[in-house]
Amino acid sequence: MTAPRRRGRPAAGAAVDTRQAILDAARTQFAAKGFTGASMRAIAAEAGVDASLISHYFGDKSRLLVATMELPVNPIEKIATVVEGGPDGMAERLLRTFLGAWDPHREVFSTLVRTTLGSGDGQAPMLQLARNVLITSLLSVLEGDDRELRANLIAGQLIGMATMRYVVRLEPLAGATVDEVVRLYAPSLQRLIGSDTP
Amino acid sequence: MTAPRRRGRPAAGAAVDTRQAILDAARTQFAAKGFTGASMRAIAAEAGVDASLISHYFGDKSRLLVATMELPVNPIEKIATVVEGGPDGMAERLLRTFLGAWDPHREVFSTLVRTTLGSGDGQAPMLQLARNVLITSLLSVLEGDDRELRANLIAGQLIGMATMRYVVRLEPLAGATVDEVVRLYAPSLQRLIGSDTP
Repeated sequence: MTAPRRRGRPAAGAAVDTRQAILDAARTQFAAKGFTGASMRAIAAEAGVDASLISHYFGDKSRLLVATMELPVNPIEKIATVVEGGPDGMAERLLRTFLGAWDPHREVFSTLVRTTLGSGDGQAPMLQLARNVLITSLLSVLEGDDRELRANLIAGQLIGMATMRYVVRLEPLAGATVDEVVRLYAPSLQRLIGSDTP
Repeated sequence: MTAPRRRGRPAAGAAVDTRQAILDAARTQFAAKGFTGASMRAIAAEAGVDASLISHYFGDKSRLLVATMELPVNPIEKIATVVEGGPDGMAERLLRTFLGAWDPHREVFSTLVRTTLGSGDGQAPMLQLARNVLITSLLSVLEGDDRELRANLIAGQLIGMATMRYVVRLEPLAGATVDEVVRLYAPSLQRLIGSDTP
């Protein structure tokens, strides 16, 4: 059943069109220039809208990237709740938040990993998200000269675990409860975060 | 320059043909039935040879699987040197051996990951190798009721790190020295192995 387009409300349709034009332009620009290289100004120009409209509809560039991916969870909000508590116990919060968000959507995660790694595209949206949301957020908490390398390794641990659980569906990991994974894996992950290393 | 086929040595050509027939049959059987389901007997039957010839040319089924993959390193020999020292310090041996083997062949590893995860084939040779060589070898060393889950997580850590280093080429991890990776990552990996947990 398709809802009939109502008369007298052209603004709603125009907003939908504008949002869609911005998303299309953002996908094109992110694919061509990467997250860092794609400017809000260039995206606005390609969409034929004023740059202020992008902020109005989507917020900042990270939020625009997430919007282009049409994910069932918002990783920016999730990671914010993880890092705001600081490094102590962050491994457990990271795992619980990650698994809580993606366990119900494991098919989506699996498709993302498959298309990202299968394509060989270094500017694939998931990689831009890993670099510019996950790793950037981790860096806001980690300390020490080697924190960039540790942030890479933490991202690798998270994606390696999720690939085994959701994509490869290796047993017993695929069927393990969140509590079991947290109990075994959080101490290992916390070693890389530092602080209250047990 | 092609070496001319010598006269009077038909056995050499026949051996090459037999080896190739066995490899072709093994690839077909592993793809159709998986590592566990594919029997040496069925592979021999499909190749039209006696089963004893498979052992003669390749050894056991794991070695036959590795032979079908035509890898630049032999993971069975590598993992054997890692596990024979027992759990103490195994994380460092595992990382040094893994990076020593694959750093010079990062393109091959990258292609393996891409084709394995891109294909969506649960019986892809790399996954069979992970389950039946890497995880099986880890289980020969790990102790405790949760050792299967820990072996899954160790495999995930290794593949996650290698995916970031070789496939995604995330910096600074992609350009870090083996010593740097070992220094930061071995304690984390050793937590899952157990024993001399620092």
